[in-house]
Amino acid sequence: MTTLFTFAINNFSVIKMSTVRAEIITIGDEILIGQIVDTNSAWMGKQLSDIGIQVHQITSVSDSREHILTALKEASQRASVVLITGGLGPTKDDVTKVTLGEYFNAPMVFNEDVFLDVERLFKMRGREVSAVNRKQAEIVSNCTPLRNEVGTAPGMWFDENNVIYVSMPGVPHEMKHLMSKHVLSRLKARYKTPFILHRSILTQGIGESVLSELIEEFENNLPKHIKLAYLPGAGMVRLRLSATGVNEAGIRAEMDQLVSDLDHRVADFRFGFDEETIQEVLGKLLTDKKLTISTAESCTGGYIAHQLTSVPGSSSWYMGSTVTYSYQSKTEILGISETLMLEHGAVSEEVVTAMVENVKRIMKTDCAVATSGIAGPGGGTPDKPVGTVWIGIALPGKVFAKKVLLGDNRLRTIQVASETALNMLRKAIIASDL
Amino acid sequence: MTTLFTFAINNFSVIKMSTVRAEIITIGDEILIGQIVDTNSAWMGKQLSDIGIQVHQITSVSDSREHILTALKEASQRASVVLITGGLGPTKDDVTKVTLGEYFNAPMVFNEDVFLDVERLFKMRGREVSAVNRKQAEIVSNCTPLRNEVGTAPGMWFDENNVIYVSMPGVPHEMKHLMSKHVLSRLKARYKTPFILHRSILTQGIGESVLSELIEEFENNLPKHIKLAYLPGAGMVRLRLSATGVNEAGIRAEMDQLVSDLDHRVADFRFGFDEETIQEVLGKLLTDKKLTISTAESCTGGYIAHQLTSVPGSSSWYMGSTVTYSYQSKTEILGISETLMLEHGAVSEEVVTAMVENVKRIMKTDCAVATSGIAGPGGGTPDKPVGTVWIGIALPGKVFAKKVLLGDNRLRTIQVASETALNMLRKAIIASDL
Repeated sequence: MTTLFTFAINNFSVIKMSTVRAEIITIGDEILIGQIVDTNSAWMGKQLSDIGIQVHQITSVSDSREHILTALKEASQRASVVLITGGLGPTKDDVTKVTLGEYFNAPMVFNEDVFLDVERLFKMRGREVSAVNRKQAEIVSNCTPLRNEVGTAPGMWFDENNVIYVSMPGVPHEMKHLMSKHVLSRLKARYKTPFILHRSILTQGIGESVLSELIEEFENNLPKHIKLAYLPGAGMVRLRLSATGVNEAGIRAEMDQLVSDLDHRVADFRFGFDEETIQEVLGKLLTDKKLTISTAESCTGGYIAHQLTSVPGSSSWYMGSTVTYSYQSKTEILGISETLMLEHGAVSEEVVTAMVENVKRIMKTDCAVATSGIAGPGGGTPDKPVGTVWIGIALPGKVFAKKVLLGDNRLRTIQVASETALNMLRKAIIASDL
Repeated sequence: MTTLFTFAINNFSVIKMSTVRAEIITIGDEILIGQIVDTNSAWMGKQLSDIGIQVHQITSVSDSREHILTALKEASQRASVVLITGGLGPTKDDVTKVTLGEYFNAPMVFNEDVFLDVERLFKMRGREVSAVNRKQAEIVSNCTPLRNEVGTAPGMWFDENNVIYVSMPGVPHEMKHLMSKHVLSRLKARYKTPFILHRSILTQGIGESVLSELIEEFENNLPKHIKLAYLPGAGMVRLRLSATGVNEAGIRAEMDQLVSDLDHRVADFRFGFDEETIQEVLGKLLTDKKLTISTAESCTGGYIAHQLTSVPGSSSWYMGSTVTYSYQSKTEILGISETLMLEHGAVSEEVVTAMVENVKRIMKTDCAVATSGIAGPGGGTPDKPVGTVWIGIALPGKVFAKKVLLGDNRLRTIQVASETALNMLRKAIIASDL
């Protein structure tokens, strides 16, 4: 179903047009009992939004025939695109395929092409096709199969009563393969969609409510067809502007202006835009300035290194990390004197400063970041409660450190400390005009 | 609403009883357009399941009044518990509270106790209560407010027409605080629930379909009231048995027997049970055996260190890591000879063996793990394609290495390589009978 809606563009025209609505159905008891987190829906929602298809609802249901049938019926009454993931694997707990056959009143048929794909995949892995895997080549007769080159369960595309249904495996990289290779291009070819533009400004070091006071005037003056949302994350708040319309060039120009205005108001806290991460922003800055970095981590335990090495190509500016969890390793690897640690404690300005200076020298990098803190749950004292983290920053010719208090959630402390440390380095590089 | 269902216990009795059904509604455009992943629902599903309340459906809807009203109405027709997260923050994009007032036809009232909590939290952070935050103390008149000691938006508990509705902030640690402190105990007091037991066996190094053939006989002979599910993750497959009934002792005994039988069949691949992670299992083993470890990471870039340091108390057995991303850092920190790297390449049996031996010696640990590989997207050659990872393991008096091929997804390669490496060490320690 497509719905009519009304909006104004640049305050000078009001247009009625149709938008394509999609719904996502994820199938699996493991989602409902919380054994896995559904990351597929967010990824699919982003892809659909990018091509102007609006996800109206995400529904997670159990591996039960009745529940799947109800969800399919309800979603198809509200939306014209229904994407389904889960329950297509080779094993017996998977009921999606059979239920789709029942829903469409269509028999299961053996598909030779799909079987060849399954066989090819098994040969590549040096294995024989089992009887169980032979069943993967059975598809619902009214579907167009979508080739899955990274797994054994094919996608299935149904076009019935003006609704598109697509069934995909729940394994994330298989679903992503099918979406990127087949589903998105087919949807684009099938629908004329309105233009939807999301733009975000990413801030660090300021809370949601202080931020809202800072930009109150901006928010009150926003045109009606543009929405602002505050999306808090670990140690950061994302400000997202969303516009919908038909005049792509007009919307882009208007959004550029608004983003620039908003950025001006939050400049002290902004570290990036849109889908950037702090590690990507820092990586680009280091590449531009031809600088290298290293890290010395204690309480963040390798998380900063993991964040940095998640960026493809990071080996050109990131030289490595020492994760020194013990006094002994701090001495042995980083050359921190035992006296210094006994005198001030490992969580201190003196030790974090020595860590950052030494790792920079040992790794022969231009800049460095170090952390030393108490992530908890144990190890806190009245002087240094759980959540106390010292962050050290070194640039050519400059070293400084700062203490932050991050509360008693171990994983959150690790994440916020990492985010804060990387942003401190970013700001220091910009301020130093290297 | 409670539904009647029928099941058999130990094949000797059939009982009719009621189970409490819950639904979760998550509110926020940011979920639908994929800007954030909804991790709250999985956590809540797990908690509810543990107290015998069955999550029937999870529904994610937009920040729109109409959509929230429809979702509340539909969920309350199917379930007797409706948990709602999102849209309670201090800023203007939050509509949940006002919509709940409309749904219950109840006015908003200022609550003095809630205001004192908001004020206290601000004082602790050394800030004044703003006008925006004052609004956080307004609640829907027919609710029982639930104190939020870690944030400014209180929870709201509604008991209307025999349905419990609970509205909570979407910020994960605030939601968790409210659930743990107030919601779960109130739900337990309110309902008599059936006993639900989930037990899982965690396997590594075997695919879903081979696993299903290995345990075909076991699966075919399962009693009707027990379900088996295969839940694949990065580099692992979880086998989950679920039983529902009233006779807790009987179900526990029957499940113990089944878990033991299943474990016997998959023993070569099993690394743990239930909610354990490979790093926790390894940590317990190291604690039991009084062994310490260190790691030297190249392609996994700190991810192994992060996994290990995510375990509270890991500092007693984990000494640290060297993340050596460059040739220079491999030489400088780990003492790997340049000749060795030039001769064999950094991704080789020889280099990974030297890395694991050297880190063990430098960190003075009993055991060590090292990785060197090509995570991609760049850096592959015909000889060593992207996804090639060498893993080195060192124990007292023993060193060995193994090559694995993990495909072209950078993050997946990092994750699977880490999981595989930690499991290799676990198996080696057990086999060595240290």
